[in-house]
Amino acid sequence: MGGWAIAVHGGAGVDPNLPTHRQEEAKQLLARCLNLGISALRSSLSAIDVVELVVRELETDPLFNSGRGSALTENGTVEMEASIMDGPKRRCGAVSGISTVKNPVSLARLVMEKSPHSYLAFSGAEEFARKQGVEMVDNEYFITKDNKGMLKLAKEANSIVFDYRIPILGTCSAGAGAIESALQMNGLPIIIYAPETVGCVVVDSQGRCAAATSTGGLMNKMMGRIGDSPLIGAGTYACDLCGVSCTGEGEAIIRGTLAREVAAVMEYKGLGLQDAVDFVVKERLDEGKAGIIAVSNKGEVACGFNTTGMFRGCASEDGYMEVGIWDQD
Amino acid sequence: MGGWAIAVHGGAGVDPNLPTHRQEEAKQLLARCLNLGISALRSSLSAIDVVELVVRELETDPLFNSGRGSALTENGTVEMEASIMDGPKRRCGAVSGISTVKNPVSLARLVMEKSPHSYLAFSGAEEFARKQGVEMVDNEYFITKDNKGMLKLAKEANSIVFDYRIPILGTCSAGAGAIESALQMNGLPIIIYAPETVGCVVVDSQGRCAAATSTGGLMNKMMGRIGDSPLIGAGTYACDLCGVSCTGEGEAIIRGTLAREVAAVMEYKGLGLQDAVDFVVKERLDEGKAGIIAVSNKGEVACGFNTTGMFRGCASEDGYMEVGIWDQD
Repeated sequence: MGGWAIAVHGGAGVDPNLPTHRQEEAKQLLARCLNLGISALRSSLSAIDVVELVVRELETDPLFNSGRGSALTENGTVEMEASIMDGPKRRCGAVSGISTVKNPVSLARLVMEKSPHSYLAFSGAEEFARKQGVEMVDNEYFITKDNKGMLKLAKEANSIVFDYRIPILGTCSAGAGAIESALQMNGLPIIIYAPETVGCVVVDSQGRCAAATSTGGLMNKMMGRIGDSPLIGAGTYACDLCGVSCTGEGEAIIRGTLAREVAAVMEYKGLGLQDAVDFVVKERLDEGKAGIIAVSNKGEVACGFNTTGMFRGCASEDGYMEVGIWDQD
Repeated sequence: MGGWAIAVHGGAGVDPNLPTHRQEEAKQLLARCLNLGISALRSSLSAIDVVELVVRELETDPLFNSGRGSALTENGTVEMEASIMDGPKRRCGAVSGISTVKNPVSLARLVMEKSPHSYLAFSGAEEFARKQGVEMVDNEYFITKDNKGMLKLAKEANSIVFDYRIPILGTCSAGAGAIESALQMNGLPIIIYAPETVGCVVVDSQGRCAAATSTGGLMNKMMGRIGDSPLIGAGTYACDLCGVSCTGEGEAIIRGTLAREVAAVMEYKGLGLQDAVDFVVKERLDEGKAGIIAVSNKGEVACGFNTTGMFRGCASEDGYMEVGIWDQD
């Protein structure tokens, strides 16, 4: 065993013109969550406990797109989803359509541990949450002023704002909000900042891997839309070998079964962790679609993305620590 | 290219004491659906059209656990789910929590083709269905007298009846309904027959693969429970190489990312279709949990299961045709 390692992300795809102070805020939050996880690992918490702890913190802070600060549906409401997976026995839990549970990732863990099922959604999931006695809040709690503004802009452009940022050059029209930047994202100028899906992967000092992912989904999404974050093998995967969390365009991640893919090429092709992540980003993912964080049971940590940046932080027991947004940080 | 091939299933895990006339009914339905698919393939329908056509027929017939004849939730209602995937571009669509759409598999295809998303659930999915103008029926339409009886027995045993059959020897108590058979399934005597998840995989004469799966889920399931059938990579998967549909204990299939696994070992380990299915059943699946049908782009067809039987039918252009239930048919 190579000691513990941890990675966190706050979404892939970032506006290149994101103001410096917003970049700093994001980096500070990532560093804080990374340190929270590191302290927990030093206190010998298990990998599954650490990923839950860190993702709860990211959900509670309104900066990224999960828990408080979640992107809004077409109706201006919040419908959150999350999943968690414990490597050793590949136990897993997931939730979708969560509207009043303060920490969806913890509900996903309860589904894993306290229900006979692996995945509960919408009113049935909320009912389960009430029976489990988890902290519930009004849907308004999750809605921020920033996101109300984003939804308005998205509706004006009659578009879905994906939870990633794809630069589409040369298609900038004079439409709503189209301004200096030529970069657009699904018809909207990328200059409009939106918070992002969060995730955490951990290997503890006993070599146990775990992963968790949580999101509010797409801004202006249809009611009932399920993305990749709650789907085991797509947004989240953990097994004996590794733990993986993905973020980006959900539809691309789903058809690429992206998180499982990293583990599959390690298992079946014998690639190491970083090579596996690089292979999957290059071979299994359309250009500009997503990012991946991963840890291995050997204490390695890796990340990869083909978007314009990814909010992420990595650390390992040998003293390595990095928080970054762009390709060259 | 090796010509077309098709496989259908009506669930894995069958009561060994299932009366002969029920076995015959199931085989006749499978043969009818197989022939429907074969005729469509001979008329040059594409793989994606054929899997939808065949699964619609299985949903419409009340015998198996999908569409009409779906298993009931703990509240006595029906919440169906389905998914479909088209190999060439790995396009996919899925739905969960469907209560008034006559053919969930066709709604999954509409999600793939007419929505910006890959997966819609519960009221949002129903709203999308209404806007698309698909045939809607009252929830009562899906509920059969047989399933009402099954739910009553399941509640008496205070148990969830899984949509598979696991023989657990030597644990037969004198509880509700415990009778001659020593075989039990999640606490209920296996002698109680329940209809099963359905699926279809097809490769057409142009080598295009597709897969679709549809289910009512578990008898007496919690409201909001999502199983493997709608999950891309778990219950359903298709790519350039193959099309795969799984059935059995959803939770085991989800953590095994079973359908993608067949394709992954073909792609990354270089195994042929039947070897890939055998490998996945042996190495990635707990004993007694599930079954798989699959076709390859070479016109091969394969199936595998580790349950007490699987309702299935297979055929290929070279004249092979088989309908069976048990290991030795």
